[in-house]
Amino acid sequence: MAGKYSLAEFLDVAVDAAKKAGEVIRRGFYQTKHVEHKGLVDLVTETDKECEELIFNHLKKHFPSHKFIGEETSAALGTSELTDDPTWIVDPLDGTTNFVHGFPFVCVSIGLTIEKVPTVGVVYNPIIDELFTGVRGQGALLNGNPIKASSQAELLKSLLATEVGTTRDKSTVDATTNRINSLLFKVRSLRMDGSCALNLCGVACGRLDIFYELGFGGPWDVAGGAIILQEAGGLIFDPYGGDFDIMSRRVAASNGHLKDLFLVALKEAEGNSRNLPV
Amino acid sequence: MAGKYSLAEFLDVAVDAAKKAGEVIRRGFYQTKHVEHKGLVDLVTETDKECEELIFNHLKKHFPSHKFIGEETSAALGTSELTDDPTWIVDPLDGTTNFVHGFPFVCVSIGLTIEKVPTVGVVYNPIIDELFTGVRGQGALLNGNPIKASSQAELLKSLLATEVGTTRDKSTVDATTNRINSLLFKVRSLRMDGSCALNLCGVACGRLDIFYELGFGGPWDVAGGAIILQEAGGLIFDPYGGDFDIMSRRVAASNGHLKDLFLVALKEAEGNSRNLPV
Repeated sequence: MAGKYSLAEFLDVAVDAAKKAGEVIRRGFYQTKHVEHKGLVDLVTETDKECEELIFNHLKKHFPSHKFIGEETSAALGTSELTDDPTWIVDPLDGTTNFVHGFPFVCVSIGLTIEKVPTVGVVYNPIIDELFTGVRGQGALLNGNPIKASSQAELLKSLLATEVGTTRDKSTVDATTNRINSLLFKVRSLRMDGSCALNLCGVACGRLDIFYELGFGGPWDVAGGAIILQEAGGLIFDPYGGDFDIMSRRVAASNGHLKDLFLVALKEAEGNSRNLPV
Repeated sequence: MAGKYSLAEFLDVAVDAAKKAGEVIRRGFYQTKHVEHKGLVDLVTETDKECEELIFNHLKKHFPSHKFIGEETSAALGTSELTDDPTWIVDPLDGTTNFVHGFPFVCVSIGLTIEKVPTVGVVYNPIIDELFTGVRGQGALLNGNPIKASSQAELLKSLLATEVGTTRDKSTVDATTNRINSLLFKVRSLRMDGSCALNLCGVACGRLDIFYELGFGGPWDVAGGAIILQEAGGLIFDPYGGDFDIMSRRVAASNGHLKDLFLVALKEAEGNSRNLPV
């Protein structure tokens, strides 16, 4: 499947790329405090572009025949189609709002799909220096140490993460808060940290028990985290109940025990949401 | 005011106490993964108690005439009254849910009030090794470097933090999510990290622009962060518009620019909340 390369080679090259991009992000992260508001948008855009170029150039040098999907590139060219070819799916800077504000949950996310299946994942938070990696069939690591999803089997004792996204029309916001309202009666507490990739890794290493997000940017937000989560014993699935579709812009993740319970709770939450006046 | 001691002595002793307690927390934090669910409550309780004893013993050794209010102690004895005497107000482990789940936002919070005014504050996150300190009239530091609140003056570009708390009766939860619903139209995004003290420090160092929480545990959640925030140029106030009351179990915090705008937004949110059917 991987052709003339080994999965270990894919991982090594991706980690190198993530570390290099991480240096650029770290530099920018500490600059944001010294940049006027006017210059901040430019700093984000430049950091984003510089990181994506750096990552793609590094990957292309090693794997010239592979395909590439990136947030920056795809935003410019329209959404890319995912094929069976080995495809690197990259978010050079996940957690843009956090980056702007100096909130230390930002990361590089790099995922490789082969025959559309997430196979190698690297998610690197350069601010608190946490490197999550996962390789299909070979487990998941945080800074080189094996990680696994939590063993929590009770929804009421679970820590749930989600995000409010960027869409601010009334029907979306109402659906978001009505869903949260319903779920708050069923879980222990709620976290929002502003990085989809780090949330997936949070479930992977057991810091979170469940995560869902609807309507995020694209496959670059989930391609790296998906395999890390799965190799840590976590489950990734469609929040509406079907199989996870990397191109669908919605995702749910849980440890190995909570998927079914959470799907029921989420379905009830959607029911509530429709019944509530808006 | 400080009697025979200097403010620098208060700070030094409090930092020592926080660092010692931090070691206990760090040890427990990495143990949680290896403790069965049954044993987890005990681990939290033990860590909490061990840290509070350690901190109080250390402070009492240096300042035997001072008064003390702690989460553990006060929970056992009923709410303590705050007097004009120098009083150390301590949360040995803020972010208990995070501690249980291994989510790295936990801290020790130590505050000293003199004539009821927050005067020295130490908030220490031992997991990501961030030490926030503040001394009245002498500025605020993060790991020894001066910090200041953000310069953001537009509510729509602000990052807001809040918490959903632990109360789960229908009227409280409805009020919580209705408030969030209304505020989401007025700020850039929302964060929830599970530590009141770290949220105050987040506003102090400009990672967050605004924070509010209603109905938290007690003065130990805010006594340390209050002076750190103020010395960083941030504002602390009652979310309903009056002066901050350390004993009130509600708090709002902003950078130097957003207080009035946020109070208006919060008032509108409360209006919405009352108009919505529950």
